[in-house]
Amino acid sequence: MAREANVSVATVSRVLNGTAPVRASTRQKIMAIIEKHKFQPNALARSLVNKRTGMIGVLFPDSSNMFFSEVFGGAERAALKLGYTLFLCNTFSDPHKESEYLHLLCERQVDGLIFMGGRINARQCQDALVQEVIDIQKKTPIVLINGTLPGHPCHRVKTDEFMGTQLLVRHFIELGHERIGFLGGSLATTTTLEKLQAFKETLHANQLPYRQDWIRLGDFSIACGYQRMEQILAMQSRPTAVVCINDYVAIGAIKAALTRGVRVPEELAIAGFDDTQLSSAMNPELTTVSQNSDELGRTALAILSRLIQKEKAQQLTVLAPRLIVRQSTQRES
Amino acid sequence: MAREANVSVATVSRVLNGTAPVRASTRQKIMAIIEKHKFQPNALARSLVNKRTGMIGVLFPDSSNMFFSEVFGGAERAALKLGYTLFLCNTFSDPHKESEYLHLLCERQVDGLIFMGGRINARQCQDALVQEVIDIQKKTPIVLINGTLPGHPCHRVKTDEFMGTQLLVRHFIELGHERIGFLGGSLATTTTLEKLQAFKETLHANQLPYRQDWIRLGDFSIACGYQRMEQILAMQSRPTAVVCINDYVAIGAIKAALTRGVRVPEELAIAGFDDTQLSSAMNPELTTVSQNSDELGRTALAILSRLIQKEKAQQLTVLAPRLIVRQSTQRES
Repeated sequence: MAREANVSVATVSRVLNGTAPVRASTRQKIMAIIEKHKFQPNALARSLVNKRTGMIGVLFPDSSNMFFSEVFGGAERAALKLGYTLFLCNTFSDPHKESEYLHLLCERQVDGLIFMGGRINARQCQDALVQEVIDIQKKTPIVLINGTLPGHPCHRVKTDEFMGTQLLVRHFIELGHERIGFLGGSLATTTTLEKLQAFKETLHANQLPYRQDWIRLGDFSIACGYQRMEQILAMQSRPTAVVCINDYVAIGAIKAALTRGVRVPEELAIAGFDDTQLSSAMNPELTTVSQNSDELGRTALAILSRLIQKEKAQQLTVLAPRLIVRQSTQRES
Repeated sequence: MAREANVSVATVSRVLNGTAPVRASTRQKIMAIIEKHKFQPNALARSLVNKRTGMIGVLFPDSSNMFFSEVFGGAERAALKLGYTLFLCNTFSDPHKESEYLHLLCERQVDGLIFMGGRINARQCQDALVQEVIDIQKKTPIVLINGTLPGHPCHRVKTDEFMGTQLLVRHFIELGHERIGFLGGSLATTTTLEKLQAFKETLHANQLPYRQDWIRLGDFSIACGYQRMEQILAMQSRPTAVVCINDYVAIGAIKAALTRGVRVPEELAIAGFDDTQLSSAMNPELTTVSQNSDELGRTALAILSRLIQKEKAQQLTVLAPRLIVRQSTQRES
């Protein structure tokens, strides 16, 4: 190709890699030869030239959880406006799957990454897993949603989950509850630790009991909510209100209570977290905390776009949560 | 590069495009030069060489609808096993967004496409939109889920939605219902037309009335189910059972009925469609039809993989639906 264009190999390399300026006429000549020989000067070939693919990789735990799909929707609408295409990968918070996708996405030379769940929320994360992300970050901008890389600078967008939990516990206290439990989540995740810490501190600040047997963790599923509520209902001395780790656990908990003939909220008040679309369609409707899912996704995309353009961006953005009171804690009077 | 490797430009072209056999030693020499000059012999460069990217584009209407995310999950698990990476794009069934994504995905040289919703379900689809897909299909294998390209051969996987609707109507008839309505969906989609046709024929075959004022269409959302049920409840002469276009519409319909103090199923039986995760968590639990969402996705991916490998694949695969009876139509006795 260099011979045909009558230029040096270094010049071809410069054109293909964009590593140094090349005269426009020379560039055109080389591109014409690429065209002639069907070197496919399409998106893939262009991306070799300008080192930009317009693709952003999104690593999320599970898009079938409405909260994540709502965050993704916010990012996607913002991406379309800016001309980016999102590449959604479900990791199920499995570090091996995360590594596999990180590797694949970097091979495909995404311009940037949005990361949520998994290792960035792990209570104890192997150094190698953190290092993998840091190594990628040297070449590819990354924005984390509701997570962090302990001890390393990174760009983050998060909702204040501590404050969100405080809002829920205070709501229960205002309604007169003194026996409050906590359902779902896993101590392996920082999200759960943060919410549980807020739960504990708010109870203590109000001289209310924090009882280990009213704390029933597990995971983030409807099934977990159902099982944990069954355990609570089997207790002699049980709480009158429970905070659930998310809306799905709350849906399962309500289902278990109603199945056993326990009225919600009259005999047991139940609150969720995330304010997914489902929360207002439930029967009873679900009291929950909005994490501003759309804004989380939109803000993460905006920050990532600035980083891709090599512009300065705020390192930490914290969104305020909002308490949404519905029937599962308080009937209309 | 050709000069440095002491080979012809045509040989370089052959190596990069894989258009003709080249001696292994020559190929290695050229690849070594690419490496030396940092021509980035990574996934992007390799994809120029072997014309395979390992990427599959997935055009779905909306991944926040659990049915679609469950179909996607089935495809994704199958893709990981075969070494493909899925590229999920939400089209919201908007033909412009579909065209934009189709264009983007082809630019990125996906090995194949899975298409669901939008134009392939449109009752009246502009010729240009169909032609766009047919043109892409000439170069890139496509598998359609629950849709078709009228008048053109294509590879399809579908659940028999006609039979699914028959199962629901017959279930109502067996329970003694004679006044049966239909909620949600849109006449602009073939899915709705097919279900409505099955609904009508099954009523006729059983000498039961098909009343236009008990057919309340709209869209596929919880909000639509709520509003349409409010209209039904305001009628003097109303049905005793309703078939809903999907689980979301049924959830909204149940919510509206319970809000008005109408007992489900005692005063009004309500059934959904899709058997999403939510259906068993509702209160009452939802009678619905399983479309085997996981299998739909898995089968589409398997067929697409055969097409990518240039192997023969069955043109039409039809999965049988299953009736799932729960509390919203029949209380445990």
